[in-house]
Amino acid sequence: MQLTTVKEIYRNREEYLDKEVTVGGWVRSVRDSKTFGFIVLHDGSFFETLQVVYHDTMENFQAISKLNVGAAIVVKGTLVATPQAKQPFEIQATEIMVEGDSAADYPLQKKRHSMEYLRTISHLRPRTNTFQAVFRVRSLIAYAIHQFFQEQGFVYVHTPLITGSDCEGAGEMFQVTTMDLNDIPKTEEGKVDFSQDFFKKPTNLTVSGQLNGETFAQAFRNIYTFGPTFRAENSNTTRHAAEFWMIEPEMAFSDLDDNMALAESMLKYVIRYVLENAPEEMNFFNSFVDKGLLDRLNNVLNSEFGHVTYTEAIEILEKANDKFDYKVYWGCDLQTEHERYLTEQVYKRPVFVTDYPKEIKAFYMKQNEDGKTVAAMDCLVPGIGEIIGGSQREDSYEKLSQRMKEMNLNEEDYGFYLDLRKYGSTRHSGFGLGFERCVMYLTGMQNIRDVIPFPRTVNNCEL
Amino acid sequence: MQLTTVKEIYRNREEYLDKEVTVGGWVRSVRDSKTFGFIVLHDGSFFETLQVVYHDTMENFQAISKLNVGAAIVVKGTLVATPQAKQPFEIQATEIMVEGDSAADYPLQKKRHSMEYLRTISHLRPRTNTFQAVFRVRSLIAYAIHQFFQEQGFVYVHTPLITGSDCEGAGEMFQVTTMDLNDIPKTEEGKVDFSQDFFKKPTNLTVSGQLNGETFAQAFRNIYTFGPTFRAENSNTTRHAAEFWMIEPEMAFSDLDDNMALAESMLKYVIRYVLENAPEEMNFFNSFVDKGLLDRLNNVLNSEFGHVTYTEAIEILEKANDKFDYKVYWGCDLQTEHERYLTEQVYKRPVFVTDYPKEIKAFYMKQNEDGKTVAAMDCLVPGIGEIIGGSQREDSYEKLSQRMKEMNLNEEDYGFYLDLRKYGSTRHSGFGLGFERCVMYLTGMQNIRDVIPFPRTVNNCEL
Repeated sequence: MQLTTVKEIYRNREEYLDKEVTVGGWVRSVRDSKTFGFIVLHDGSFFETLQVVYHDTMENFQAISKLNVGAAIVVKGTLVATPQAKQPFEIQATEIMVEGDSAADYPLQKKRHSMEYLRTISHLRPRTNTFQAVFRVRSLIAYAIHQFFQEQGFVYVHTPLITGSDCEGAGEMFQVTTMDLNDIPKTEEGKVDFSQDFFKKPTNLTVSGQLNGETFAQAFRNIYTFGPTFRAENSNTTRHAAEFWMIEPEMAFSDLDDNMALAESMLKYVIRYVLENAPEEMNFFNSFVDKGLLDRLNNVLNSEFGHVTYTEAIEILEKANDKFDYKVYWGCDLQTEHERYLTEQVYKRPVFVTDYPKEIKAFYMKQNEDGKTVAAMDCLVPGIGEIIGGSQREDSYEKLSQRMKEMNLNEEDYGFYLDLRKYGSTRHSGFGLGFERCVMYLTGMQNIRDVIPFPRTVNNCEL
Repeated sequence: MQLTTVKEIYRNREEYLDKEVTVGGWVRSVRDSKTFGFIVLHDGSFFETLQVVYHDTMENFQAISKLNVGAAIVVKGTLVATPQAKQPFEIQATEIMVEGDSAADYPLQKKRHSMEYLRTISHLRPRTNTFQAVFRVRSLIAYAIHQFFQEQGFVYVHTPLITGSDCEGAGEMFQVTTMDLNDIPKTEEGKVDFSQDFFKKPTNLTVSGQLNGETFAQAFRNIYTFGPTFRAENSNTTRHAAEFWMIEPEMAFSDLDDNMALAESMLKYVIRYVLENAPEEMNFFNSFVDKGLLDRLNNVLNSEFGHVTYTEAIEILEKANDKFDYKVYWGCDLQTEHERYLTEQVYKRPVFVTDYPKEIKAFYMKQNEDGKTVAAMDCLVPGIGEIIGGSQREDSYEKLSQRMKEMNLNEEDYGFYLDLRKYGSTRHSGFGLGFERCVMYLTGMQNIRDVIPFPRTVNNCEL
């Protein structure tokens, strides 16, 4: 159907004023007096609504007045300016066609619903203001990330979801199988007979595309992944989901400084893009979800990120140990309370913590000269804590192979990964950005379940 | 590291000529005479290579001359025009630093390797010309698709990968579980005790995001998905993979004609984008992979797609039944041989076949007035056959519910889907584009294993 969108009308109002337009959308409210009525219409293209005025000169005046919230209609009429009113313009309708009624038990009546309730109707909640804003901004962030990398010539790589290996030799993973769970085939020794499974071996859902990504960085120099990853962690928190999306850039001829520079410019690019392209949604978040949001994001845009080594950070944090549930000491992993203290109280802006003890980081991180730390970096932001984790990768065959032995990793599983250090190894680095954590950061939303269209968490896999 | 890319040099040569540049990349070949030598360097940023000339005035002249194919180097020197030579310019090196050697057994020596062999080294094959071209174009197609939809205000929706439902009540699916396969927990009745699984119920990998996508179209009007989908089909062909990516737009207030118009403009947009942004790669495909490729794609750009109903198509095909392995008759599903005959022999351009018998199509497609057909459309393209399949969706609660009963679908599983017809239903439509099939179409590559970075097919899940 040829319809004018509400977005077009708001963005180019001069073109449409005093002209006939046809719009289609869903009724947010209807109120009528005896001879005329008002409809607030939302068409999904734009955060704001459009007011429609209709009169009893219309044949179906009575039917329209009885429409329930949520009904779908198509409205033909003239757009007129309303300088005296709250809204800038309205449609004087000449014709209203009902596209689809809304039954009396429509769950989204015009009142406030709790987030908990809305999670039980994930097929309808995108029709509410909050989720209109969240999921449009989610879409814009995703696009901004693609644009950022593509403009710089990065190659987008689809790393596999089903995998025979576990990237970090750790993590609780989902198994993937086509075997009959009622009757798992067994070998003569009584073990699972994976030769009868689809891939003839045990397979899992990926926890990271990094190692695969590195193989492409050694061919294309700069690449990024953007795809789903999975954790079968039994953690029922506001920050963990079993299925989430990750962005993992990887760059050849790149050290830890290059890596941090990329992360900083990416975050700034995405923030700027969303502020420019979703001002209505961002104002809504700032007013109703998180009052300090716009100040915080603008502060990030206008500041250079801080840099501190893990060792220095520990010295700073030790002085504040009385404030923490978990006391810090050199060698400990940083908790969210420590991360937030650093970025919110000490630096008051995003900060990179670098050069962590090798014992608390992954095997593939480049070993520093000191023999104790690795060239890792975490980017901490106010309100969240860690949002990005990355490192320069170990590019020496000998050191990598040695570290894998120390950590009891099976060299055979990583033959392809060692090959990268055997044939034209380069200094290279990369990081991972949890996409949902990024959406939470940019919207101020507090629960990961509310930034994923259909969230998967422990015990929960609806629709 | 601050390096100039080969792409920058090719695209803005005037800026770099006679200036000092530093480039980094991998050696494609080295040949030396006594006092000087040539290196062909590839840096991953661009399809073409760069020639480096070096002299025995360099301290490490001998070491450089002994470099193996695949070694990583950083070259400092002056870019000079070479009007007499094959290549447009070369670097007169003043310094060459070896970033990483390449061992003598490097599998990609300077000779032609078979596709079958290259599939066994999926971590190295992106370094070859063919896969440089394939995977850069794959990345550009993905971006063009995002750009196409975002420019028109479509909202990108991440539909879930792990799902408790089977979209079309059919299809062989991968099961997802965290239960111990060696010791599956059983209920007292001896059945699998899914209450002990991660989600407390059986779950699978998605075969389509469409139904979830529809819920968002009824909120945002125009949406698209772009994510992985899975089929556990035991088919070992050149066109089937167990894991592949799909694009599924869905539009409210949209009928079958709107749907076909969107599909046609999307395909043309993507073709134009790739021809403009990867001319070197597309010329390579046209010369070495598929000689008719550019003619075929330009023909698509310059033609209006054809339209024919299934019933008309069957009449046309019946006249050619002697040419087909499978004879056609009204009611049969079209095979690739029929599809290709229609688009290649009859229309000589892409063609939409519409209004298929309802028996061979999914339950959610809008029933036509004739009671026999549904408002489906398949887009057929020369060289491939079906590349897009879509339909207008049934928007009547009663008709949809009736059809689900006829097809023995459990209404409870589809309550959310029926709700969309109960609360503000709209005429709406959408389609699915198999991303890999699109990449094959635009590159001329013949095997789906060669357009996926790490393909998953029956019995094959490497790296």
